[in-house]
Amino acid sequence: MDWQDEIEAAAERTRPHVQQTPVMQTRGFGLDYPVELKLEHMQHTGSFKARGAFNTLLSQEVPAAGLVAASGGNHGAAVAYAAHQLGHEARIYVPGMAGPAKISLIKRAGADLQVVPGAYADALEMAQAYEAETGAMQVHAYEAPATVAGQGTCFAEWQTQGLDADTLLIAVGGGGLIAGALAWFQGARKIVAVEPETSCALKSALQAGTPVDVEVSGIAANALGAKRIGNICFELAASQGLTSVTVPDTAIAEAQTALWQERRILVEPAGATAMAALMSGAYRPRPGERVAVLICGGNIAPDPLG
Amino acid sequence: MDWQDEIEAAAERTRPHVQQTPVMQTRGFGLDYPVELKLEHMQHTGSFKARGAFNTLLSQEVPAAGLVAASGGNHGAAVAYAAHQLGHEARIYVPGMAGPAKISLIKRAGADLQVVPGAYADALEMAQAYEAETGAMQVHAYEAPATVAGQGTCFAEWQTQGLDADTLLIAVGGGGLIAGALAWFQGARKIVAVEPETSCALKSALQAGTPVDVEVSGIAANALGAKRIGNICFELAASQGLTSVTVPDTAIAEAQTALWQERRILVEPAGATAMAALMSGAYRPRPGERVAVLICGGNIAPDPLG
Repeated sequence: MDWQDEIEAAAERTRPHVQQTPVMQTRGFGLDYPVELKLEHMQHTGSFKARGAFNTLLSQEVPAAGLVAASGGNHGAAVAYAAHQLGHEARIYVPGMAGPAKISLIKRAGADLQVVPGAYADALEMAQAYEAETGAMQVHAYEAPATVAGQGTCFAEWQTQGLDADTLLIAVGGGGLIAGALAWFQGARKIVAVEPETSCALKSALQAGTPVDVEVSGIAANALGAKRIGNICFELAASQGLTSVTVPDTAIAEAQTALWQERRILVEPAGATAMAALMSGAYRPRPGERVAVLICGGNIAPDPLG
Repeated sequence: MDWQDEIEAAAERTRPHVQQTPVMQTRGFGLDYPVELKLEHMQHTGSFKARGAFNTLLSQEVPAAGLVAASGGNHGAAVAYAAHQLGHEARIYVPGMAGPAKISLIKRAGADLQVVPGAYADALEMAQAYEAETGAMQVHAYEAPATVAGQGTCFAEWQTQGLDADTLLIAVGGGGLIAGALAWFQGARKIVAVEPETSCALKSALQAGTPVDVEVSGIAANALGAKRIGNICFELAASQGLTSVTVPDTAIAEAQTALWQERRILVEPAGATAMAALMSGAYRPRPGERVAVLICGGNIAPDPLG
């Protein structure tokens, strides 16, 4: 499959439906070098997930039974929103750990929401059972080419906006977003995966040489807590010799605070995870290396205006 | 005075110290037309005020007694920050209504903070007494050419970023920011002033034909509650036949909620006031008229991560 063609087609297809998100150069955060930020948390429903959701719905025939998705919250909100915009029914399964902000976001989008006990993997099991039973189309959060191509449009867009960096830092959960980056850049930029120490399915897979199950916990777990990295991501990462780093929850919380205090960017822990790798020194650029950080999600709880 | 020259000089002078803030085109907010936003709440200390503060400090000799400023909060935070960055002492007077978020911001910047009873006008009186007593340099929030030229750099910058609008909507308190816009554009773009119904010093002045005292209250009062519009602003506004509209607090609160829910832009009420004019219909663009909104301040209370 020619990923770049797929991503360009996805960009064309989804353009009327997604928000072009702003890019900025900034200094601060205790760093002695500038950082380029793409503010993808300003995307519809507060994360990049809307890109993959729209690309999936616009590139495939949606059955009368509608859509089904499992999600830690952000993907579910994106599928619910895209379904509503395009006039489809959607059933969304989320674990209780999705939290009230994301659950209310999914409800607001008018989806049929099912909150299930357990973690993301349990929600996925329920979604697969519903798919088998009803014939609804499963919109997978990361293990589907249309999802990955949709997330890849974020990077194609960034390039048209003048992306001026050698290296991009991207937070990883199931790997849909970073797979989109790897698929788009094909080695033309260095990609650094950043995972929480307590939810590092990609690092564990790279060490084991194959995707393996991991325990997931920590403050970013409802967004980044995939039990096993997606195969699409793993294959791209392994073949490209991806650099991967991990950060503790304390570093994520510090980056979250700094993004708000220094730049009035209010994000959920997952949205601050890539920045945490710079601030904590988990990733140290070489002298002169220009770095960029994707701010991926803003669905903070509790609602700051609630 | 040639305002455009002054603003270009201010832009040159302040460039190493201010954040170039991002611009985005967006849809939503219940509107059937797109809106261009400049995210100036991402400026240092969370508002455009840092521009005027740096321009003042960099264009004038600062006496050994340092700086003094009176402020509803945002200007004080900006002066405190600029003073700290440039190695000066600063005494900042704010009224209690500045609120805990802005007060803690000023403290964090290391200024000598004085919280006084009453409103902005009372803080200004104290600041003037301190100036007379010590010889400290008064950095006025809006009634000073260096402040206005500094705020004007926001619009010079926006133009270099490809500002694509016929009309700019700008929230008004004492008038420093909109004076900067009027001074920069000199009629080349339509400027619309937006004030809270309960704090409308500019509208009252335009009606009276001269600046007059008004009562100030409401949810945006600590940022927009100037008792009397500045003369610099009034003269520019009157000579250019400025359009002025007012919005109720309910419309400001709705715009604040929509900016967060639709775009993950978290701002204080003043920062949502210009958008409120569009959402409420207080300003209705003609068909095809391209509009832009300056998002001016993000120092929301309480601290969303507090």
